[in-house]
Amino acid sequence: MNGKPQQVAVVAKHDGMGVAGPLTQIIRLLKSRGLTVRADERSAGFSNEPPHVVAPREPMDSLLEGADLAVVVGGDGTLLGCARVAARHDVPVIGVNLGHLGFLTDLSADSVQETLGAVLDGRYTKESRILLEGEVERGGSPIFRSVALNDVVVSRGAMGTMIEISIEVDGEFVYSARADGLIVATPTGSTAYALSSGGPILQPSLPAIALVPISPHTLSNRPIAIASTSVVKIRLLHGKNARVNFDVQAFFDPATDDVITIRAHPKPLTLLHPEGHSYFAVLRNKLHWNERTS
Amino acid sequence: MNGKPQQVAVVAKHDGMGVAGPLTQIIRLLKSRGLTVRADERSAGFSNEPPHVVAPREPMDSLLEGADLAVVVGGDGTLLGCARVAARHDVPVIGVNLGHLGFLTDLSADSVQETLGAVLDGRYTKESRILLEGEVERGGSPIFRSVALNDVVVSRGAMGTMIEISIEVDGEFVYSARADGLIVATPTGSTAYALSSGGPILQPSLPAIALVPISPHTLSNRPIAIASTSVVKIRLLHGKNARVNFDVQAFFDPATDDVITIRAHPKPLTLLHPEGHSYFAVLRNKLHWNERTS
Amino acid sequence: MNGKPQQVAVVAKHDGMGVAGPLTQIIRLLKSRGLTVRADERSAGFSNEPPHVVAPREPMDSLLEGADLAVVVGGDGTLLGCARVAARHDVPVIGVNLGHLGFLTDLSADSVQETLGAVLDGRYTKESRILLEGEVERGGSPIFRSVALNDVVVSRGAMGTMIEISIEVDGEFVYSARADGLIVATPTGSTAYALSSGGPILQPSLPAIALVPISPHTLSNRPIAIASTSVVKIRLLHGKNARVNFDVQAFFDPATDDVITIRAHPKPLTLLHPEGHSYFAVLRNKLHWNERTS
Amino acid sequence: MNGKPQQVAVVAKHDGMGVAGPLTQIIRLLKSRGLTVRADERSAGFSNEPPHVVAPREPMDSLLEGADLAVVVGGDGTLLGCARVAARHDVPVIGVNLGHLGFLTDLSADSVQETLGAVLDGRYTKESRILLEGEVERGGSPIFRSVALNDVVVSRGAMGTMIEISIEVDGEFVYSARADGLIVATPTGSTAYALSSGGPILQPSLPAIALVPISPHTLSNRPIAIASTSVVKIRLLHGKNARVNFDVQAFFDPATDDVITIRAHPKPLTLLHPEGHSYFAVLRNKLHWNERTS
Repeated sequence: MNGKPQQVAVVAKHDGMGVAGPLTQIIRLLKSRGLTVRADERSAGFSNEPPHVVAPREPMDSLLEGADLAVVVGGDGTLLGCARVAARHDVPVIGVNLGHLGFLTDLSADSVQETLGAVLDGRYTKESRILLEGEVERGGSPIFRSVALNDVVVSRGAMGTMIEISIEVDGEFVYSARADGLIVATPTGSTAYALSSGGPILQPSLPAIALVPISPHTLSNRPIAIASTSVVKIRLLHGKNARVNFDVQAFFDPATDDVITIRAHPKPLTLLHPEGHSYFAVLRNKLHWNERTS
Repeated sequence: MNGKPQQVAVVAKHDGMGVAGPLTQIIRLLKSRGLTVRADERSAGFSNEPPHVVAPREPMDSLLEGADLAVVVGGDGTLLGCARVAARHDVPVIGVNLGHLGFLTDLSADSVQETLGAVLDGRYTKESRILLEGEVERGGSPIFRSVALNDVVVSRGAMGTMIEISIEVDGEFVYSARADGLIVATPTGSTAYALSSGGPILQPSLPAIALVPISPHTLSNRPIAIASTSVVKIRLLHGKNARVNFDVQAFFDPATDDVITIRAHPKPLTLLHPEGHSYFAVLRNKLHWNERTS
Repeated sequence: MNGKPQQVAVVAKHDGMGVAGPLTQIIRLLKSRGLTVRADERSAGFSNEPPHVVAPREPMDSLLEGADLAVVVGGDGTLLGCARVAARHDVPVIGVNLGHLGFLTDLSADSVQETLGAVLDGRYTKESRILLEGEVERGGSPIFRSVALNDVVVSRGAMGTMIEISIEVDGEFVYSARADGLIVATPTGSTAYALSSGGPILQPSLPAIALVPISPHTLSNRPIAIASTSVVKIRLLHGKNARVNFDVQAFFDPATDDVITIRAHPKPLTLLHPEGHSYFAVLRNKLHWNERTS
Repeated sequence: MNGKPQQVAVVAKHDGMGVAGPLTQIIRLLKSRGLTVRADERSAGFSNEPPHVVAPREPMDSLLEGADLAVVVGGDGTLLGCARVAARHDVPVIGVNLGHLGFLTDLSADSVQETLGAVLDGRYTKESRILLEGEVERGGSPIFRSVALNDVVVSRGAMGTMIEISIEVDGEFVYSARADGLIVATPTGSTAYALSSGGPILQPSLPAIALVPISPHTLSNRPIAIASTSVVKIRLLHGKNARVNFDVQAFFDPATDDVITIRAHPKPLTLLHPEGHSYFAVLRNKLHWNERTS
């Protein structure tokens, strides 16, 4: 967002739970500022205040293309759902959470009038978050491609058996592993699934990608952080029912010998935060740091 | 095995890879001792020396019932495959590995003539390993039941989404967790999947069961070891495509609100080892302990 | 405690912070029940109500010997401080915490009138907790001995260098390790330092001891739970400034080739809890289980 | 090293064990190439071939100043010992290991004739490794300062009690922790002590620093990787016998309220490797990756 926004897109949580009040308030606030408000059909249906423009929910391109700002009302999952399209169209995003503070949605619905107002007045900070793009190749030809803000996960299917993969970074062999899977995570994703699987927290501004094996057979197969300019290739050596997922939103089932190539997406996502936002304060809150257990 | 065996059942690795030589040698050895040798059809087909009795492979009951000893030729997986039936019929088991030393198969095929001979001469140690039995209940009625030597695992299906479960031990609520799953492991299973997921090693003789969450959302949901007399109840609070597996050999797909009840099986498995067998020596070998990295 | 107590010993937190009110209340309650109240000098000094008998603080033997119950007012550390003497004299202990709920001190000072009253009326549950005794031998002769309720820790001294130890269980070699140290923990201690170092939670009734290496050089040197009847021998192969501590209350500095022998103490500690006490409820509270992070 | 070196400094392992042969060979090789060989007094004493110039061992400045290359003969510890001075004087370093392959010393003494010869012919790759500089402040004034290639560790002293620290990154509060300590590690140090304490592996070229708590009381105090341009401030809130160490080579005992400020050193170390050197191949070797346990 450079200067004041003109066109603002609003996207609400898919199931609409608890959305009506905050969404109505937000659309009224935006209108009162003289801004053009766009919403997808689904979100428009949750609001008591109509937007100026209504666009399809899927794909989100026509909603977001040309917008100066996207306001997401929901939780981190809702924001994940529009991050890829927002990045493609260079639309900065700000998130309003409806319940618990999120890692990505840091305006509280309770005080959205003041906090979003301040952002519209130009009192915000801007942050760039990398996304990952992944491509599955079979016999040298690409057969699937998608983008993720959190992580690309290659993992076992439902049959409960490990997969066997071989990992290469920038053409150099790293290791082959038998494991439940491998998480390739951005700094944004480092506090999500990767953290549960023993990965490190990566500060959002760190130009890094984490490779985090899930329940690896070899205990010394520990998480590795590599440069975000790296190209990661994962070959599925053996795996019935293996699966690749992108932010748990897009899925593909690779076959033995398929190669998944993962690298940073050329366009990062721009996230806006209210002034005074602290990443570590969010971590402290979410991870119960500073709370004492004795 | 009390006193000398009369009836010996032989079970070989399912795919027969590398089995012919050792199996033939073993059957000849057993015959030369005047023992009655039984084998399942599949194993009999791999041997150049015919057994006295041939029985079906599945179910293994008619093969093992009445046997005084079962000799398993393969790897730990092969032994896992007959552990449940052997336990049911009180048949002690000894394992011959074809390649790498196993946790359960500790006679090497290379020296099986001498080592198995010594066991037949009565020079062995005996060890009791608990098994787990698990029952899935729906609306209060049992709908699936199986037995495991390593572990009963309740985990997410292929869709890549966490499951949500609630855990109770002896009627007392422990916690509810969002995770990839929960491993309920015996001491035998503590060095298998549970170890990869961060669980402790439980000495085989410890009357304990380990509860090991897989990639839990709450970082403090750490592994817990409880008494092997405990009754564990796992309720599936939420989970599309959840799955229960028993030693990755039997599977059931539970629905939301199904309850999986897990407890030690009344009959343990008797494992025989050559004299001088050391559990910790096996661990050192398998986990590369004592090898230095600098 | 069998039947009603006659003689009750009261021990308060060493620094007396926040002790006066609850302690006075407790002594009055005990007197009102016609019980003989004993306190150590230090604790007596904190109370506005005098006990019947005053005994020395250190050693605590004359205070506790012959008592039917010890009421500890403070935190888990205070209870740790008298556990060893209480176990020696078969005195059951109940703990009153002054602030946060403890793992061991589960009556809250705020409601001590009712909850301790109920316990005195016989409404309590009884639990047995093992202690460890450790002995340091040099050249075959014992030179130090102490007892611990939580853990015996052999660790590096201040110089920041690893120690090298060799571990034996029941005469069988386990491994030699280079590490910051090794924690030998009871189930009680499994939720203390051992948990911070990656050890499992051991249910209090499990007859087990956990061996938890601290920052081991070999990544597969994972925690092991062994039977509480085991004898653990730790030989210090190499270590400048190594140290053995017992509950961080007694210390000894071993030299190279000293052997530390650790086993369960013959006399366990009897802990009393109010009726309805749940171990897992305490864990949930202390470890923030069930609290959601998204 | 730009172009061919003229002046080469040689530094051998402090205790001289196994050094004589390789060192003599190396000095002869360097002389045969017409290079000026410098060695410290101690190293010179181990060689059967005299260097051209002998300089003091401590401090190493006069040995390394003006050298075009330093050849270290020993293990990673020996290289750590001269990294700080080499970085200060912009001298590239190459390491020859005497036994096991090191993370930093990747020429084998057995084949040093060929491999070092190839390096002198210009067949090498160059790598830049950051160092950390740390300063202890008391009441606002610096009282100690040192530099580390692996890590700066703030940890408990010998008394066995946790320390309590507060951590700030670039002026922003991160968390306060009770722990055995905190490791601030470079990518080089990420495979040393930090790895044993649960930290991630950081690819050497990643501009990152890892903050790894040692046995933290709060289980969610997980390792964090931050930008190597960050300034880390650690305040000792409480800690008897706390200690700061730099590569376990320089030590300082801070007092309560002392602040340790850590940031990347302005001058990195230049490491040379033989052509074809692979970082991940070293990791695979050191961590037993690719070795199968079943």
